[in-house]
Amino acid sequence: MTGMQVGTLWGIGVGPGDPELMTLKAHRLIAAAKVVAYPAPDRGDSFARAIAAGAIAPGAAEIPMRVPMRAERFPAQEVYAEAATRIAGHLEAGTDVAVLCEGDPFFYGSFMYLFARLAERFPVEIVPGVSSLGACTAALKRPLTARNDVLTVLPGPLPDAQLKARIKAAEAIAIMKVGRHLTRIRALLDAMGLTANAGYIARASLADQHVSPLAEAPDEAPYFSMILVYRGADPWLS
Amino acid sequence: MTGMQVGTLWGIGVGPGDPELMTLKAHRLIAAAKVVAYPAPDRGDSFARAIAAGAIAPGAAEIPMRVPMRAERFPAQEVYAEAATRIAGHLEAGTDVAVLCEGDPFFYGSFMYLFARLAERFPVEIVPGVSSLGACTAALKRPLTARNDVLTVLPGPLPDAQLKARIKAAEAIAIMKVGRHLTRIRALLDAMGLTANAGYIARASLADQHVSPLAEAPDEAPYFSMILVYRGADPWLS
Repeated sequence: MTGMQVGTLWGIGVGPGDPELMTLKAHRLIAAAKVVAYPAPDRGDSFARAIAAGAIAPGAAEIPMRVPMRAERFPAQEVYAEAATRIAGHLEAGTDVAVLCEGDPFFYGSFMYLFARLAERFPVEIVPGVSSLGACTAALKRPLTARNDVLTVLPGPLPDAQLKARIKAAEAIAIMKVGRHLTRIRALLDAMGLTANAGYIARASLADQHVSPLAEAPDEAPYFSMILVYRGADPWLS
Repeated sequence: MTGMQVGTLWGIGVGPGDPELMTLKAHRLIAAAKVVAYPAPDRGDSFARAIAAGAIAPGAAEIPMRVPMRAERFPAQEVYAEAATRIAGHLEAGTDVAVLCEGDPFFYGSFMYLFARLAERFPVEIVPGVSSLGACTAALKRPLTARNDVLTVLPGPLPDAQLKARIKAAEAIAIMKVGRHLTRIRALLDAMGLTANAGYIARASLADQHVSPLAEAPDEAPYFSMILVYRGADPWLS
């Protein structure tokens, strides 16, 4: 093994869903990758892989990380530990591994679970991607932040009291991972008198994207859904 | 003019600086654009144009929006008003106009000044881009947010009391547009005992990118610089 160069772990953001929202750099690196890893559900297709499908080389080895969709963290941690071992094998053999990450690798992504296991042993490079936040603002066609606005990004699963306190303190608010919390969050924003200031976006940038005022959102939201709230004056009218 | 189709105003994010961090979509649309507009300083080159330079078609008409770098808003507003008039002329004639936006068009960008003037009269499409936030997290090689972390994005020019209150309330903090506020913000973070949790990034994704712990930041920061602060436990070690 003397003098042998280890491979690099690439965390590559593939953007919010539309394959054309991949960066030129992501596209080039994925096309050149001999080994590609990506998160996937228990059964069915990986969203990250679907975004990048047109770029993956036909002969590339693939490492799907099938994460059970349950509340407990332990099964997921086992999946990442096993994937990290397989990926480490390729890196030790001198082969780069491209990990496909939905949106941006370090913006609420699962890439950090591999990063935590491998970053001290191998070189890591991160390729930032268009985040769901950018895609949702674009879909809503309304500026999110301007000048000295404070933006707060809140995960939807947070309890009401925390959401409320933090919504009050910001000019622009993005509530991520709305999913099954939609009804509760809508009631909270209603009670705060903010429904008229809020937009709802699901599956941003995809062909079946949904964009509407929050008041017109459906009752069931997919995991990839977001609420954007604009407090105070409309920034672009001032 | 009956039946004549007006052009579309495209707000196109060109990403944080590395031309390869443009999206495939941005690249395609810029290459096809007959009219390209972009912000520029009083004198010298436009950063947005420099990022997209390799994509702009040789014969494209260009509308630089030369914004005086002064504190007063009025000269800038005049520049945008004049640019909006020129752009409206092209749109009325049925020609699309591509506006090049550093980072993401609706994330603290100046595109909103054109949007405010033109969105009610013409169709607008937004192409999200990789934001400076994504580029800075990637440069620092450290996950910014995970699971139910709250992220707060703060403009550096905000007064100390506001910065302090909001830093206290978030797990992850991005302070944008640090520039001439670096010394003041560093003193504030020092007083809060957070210097060891903070990273400093300037000109992220460019060849002369600077990345360091905040304690090792130079005394002078360019406008495009950011401080990232991680409060509480290291998310990827938990």
